[in-house]
Amino acid sequence: MNLLDSVNELIGNFKKGNIRALARIISKIENEDPGKDELLKNIFGMTGKAYVVGVTGSPGAGKSSLVDRMTSCLRKKGETVGIIAVDPTSPFSGGALLGDRIRMQEHAVDRGVYIRSMGTRGSLGGLARTTKEVVKVLDAYGYSWVIVETVGVGQAELDIMHVADTTLVVLTPGAGDSIQTIKAGIMEIADIFVVNKCDLPGADKVASEISQMLDLQGGTPEWRPPVVQVSTLNDLGMDGLMESVEKHRSYLVDSGLLESYREDRARKETLEIVDFRWRKLVNSQLNYQGFVNDILNRVTGRKTDPYTAADAILRYVIENSGLAGKK
Amino acid sequence: MNLLDSVNELIGNFKKGNIRALARIISKIENEDPGKDELLKNIFGMTGKAYVVGVTGSPGAGKSSLVDRMTSCLRKKGETVGIIAVDPTSPFSGGALLGDRIRMQEHAVDRGVYIRSMGTRGSLGGLARTTKEVVKVLDAYGYSWVIVETVGVGQAELDIMHVADTTLVVLTPGAGDSIQTIKAGIMEIADIFVVNKCDLPGADKVASEISQMLDLQGGTPEWRPPVVQVSTLNDLGMDGLMESVEKHRSYLVDSGLLESYREDRARKETLEIVDFRWRKLVNSQLNYQGFVNDILNRVTGRKTDPYTAADAILRYVIENSGLAGKK
Repeated sequence: MNLLDSVNELIGNFKKGNIRALARIISKIENEDPGKDELLKNIFGMTGKAYVVGVTGSPGAGKSSLVDRMTSCLRKKGETVGIIAVDPTSPFSGGALLGDRIRMQEHAVDRGVYIRSMGTRGSLGGLARTTKEVVKVLDAYGYSWVIVETVGVGQAELDIMHVADTTLVVLTPGAGDSIQTIKAGIMEIADIFVVNKCDLPGADKVASEISQMLDLQGGTPEWRPPVVQVSTLNDLGMDGLMESVEKHRSYLVDSGLLESYREDRARKETLEIVDFRWRKLVNSQLNYQGFVNDILNRVTGRKTDPYTAADAILRYVIENSGLAGKK
Repeated sequence: MNLLDSVNELIGNFKKGNIRALARIISKIENEDPGKDELLKNIFGMTGKAYVVGVTGSPGAGKSSLVDRMTSCLRKKGETVGIIAVDPTSPFSGGALLGDRIRMQEHAVDRGVYIRSMGTRGSLGGLARTTKEVVKVLDAYGYSWVIVETVGVGQAELDIMHVADTTLVVLTPGAGDSIQTIKAGIMEIADIFVVNKCDLPGADKVASEISQMLDLQGGTPEWRPPVVQVSTLNDLGMDGLMESVEKHRSYLVDSGLLESYREDRARKETLEIVDFRWRKLVNSQLNYQGFVNDILNRVTGRKTDPYTAADAILRYVIENSGLAGKK
């Protein structure tokens, strides 16, 4: 069976709602399978229906529990939910995260919920791209909501959050989560702030600190990110949170921003694929131990400077891309 | 005066040790001046002598004070020091950082010390590149040590730290700095762990937690990152820290790793410049509102998929690069 046949069969089963076809497609994306692009091309027409929520925040803020509770709320309304839990790369935090996953067991037997953990596999830049692609697959499969959960709030996580229509930033009262430690960039991506563990002392303080920051700068005149207090442990405040999410969704739809944000993302994503293809062209030259390697050796031997070398490599890769005019 | 004349004059003054020429070259790099690459080409032959130390860690860990104390130690030995302090992008933390800068005033009138703050100007990916370039300029100018200090430990900061021969990760006892909150990736980049504010309770605990983590995984058989306790406030432990830095330097030199790391970096940097040039080519097509924009509009209008579009854009940019064969 050739590549195209197997792609066609997989897509056929996927369109019939076969859950194993879904899982196989996601695995192919994660493993950078050669047939991956062909699969994504085929499902592109089926995407664009799901509403995508991103959930991020400090480690230990209770993101998984929050996603779990949100999923229960959505299921009660008959919505279906695809969840992507992005785990960090360090071997030191793997255990705790597996524990988080176990909390979601309630939904493990529910056909209306699909949970997928994704590891970074060392490539943080690549993870944002892979996450976007898996969101598309879950969207195409028919889940009406896709929730992307990432641990931490570094640049990689901020990149991943670009996939979301509504982004929740989760904080907790107490050590290490005071406003001062909020990463640069996090204020800007939050559409809704969630103060979890609101039964603990200090929750009001965190909430009011966020509000003060928002007074200084935050959101647009049209959308000021609400600060919602919840306790996933005691199931408090979840209805209010889901209302805020729906309110933000209505705001995006009514203002036309949902459409224009999604257009921006499609544009950006296309250019990212262009970059990725370009890098593949460069890497294919590196693998040959030919001209590009020779000139890199001239740089490391200090026989030429990186700028002169880069110009020569650029020209060489373009000339040998197989795409430069008639050959 | 044309571009090349002004570059030649600036380089001439720079080689004579003119400090204003140094400052102007750094500004040109920060501002992406068109003559920037020409300047960097010209100084490349003068680089490779400085030893580069990176200092990173959580906000409030006392990195600036540490750099300040290290600088004093180095000056006592007659070394000269160029310092690059990389500030985060968020407007919320700007004030405190300016405060940190003021602490370094002791060195402000010392000709053997040069301090330069660098803002992110919105582009985090670009900051790592700019920082590398400024390190080269300070190296070429003749500073025997260059210290790069970055706030926070996100992916962008990890990228910046790639410029360093020896990387110090600074922690403090107390809230928010327990081992659990250490970012994924930070263990791997630390050559030396510094526990600052060692006079505070809990310093031993932090140090032993790091040691335990290193027992599990950390460093190579040849270099286990030492955990050094200091108090910059009381000037404690600084000699021990500087000894550790020298020990790491000797290890790198003797093992040949300094040379091979620097070669790897030169290679990587050259390929990054290739990528940057490529992106410029793509952007120049985007600015024309021509074919590339048309095809992106087809993606946002869902008339084609991003993968098919990316292939077409890749081919178009290559064909119109002015570098594709004889034209």
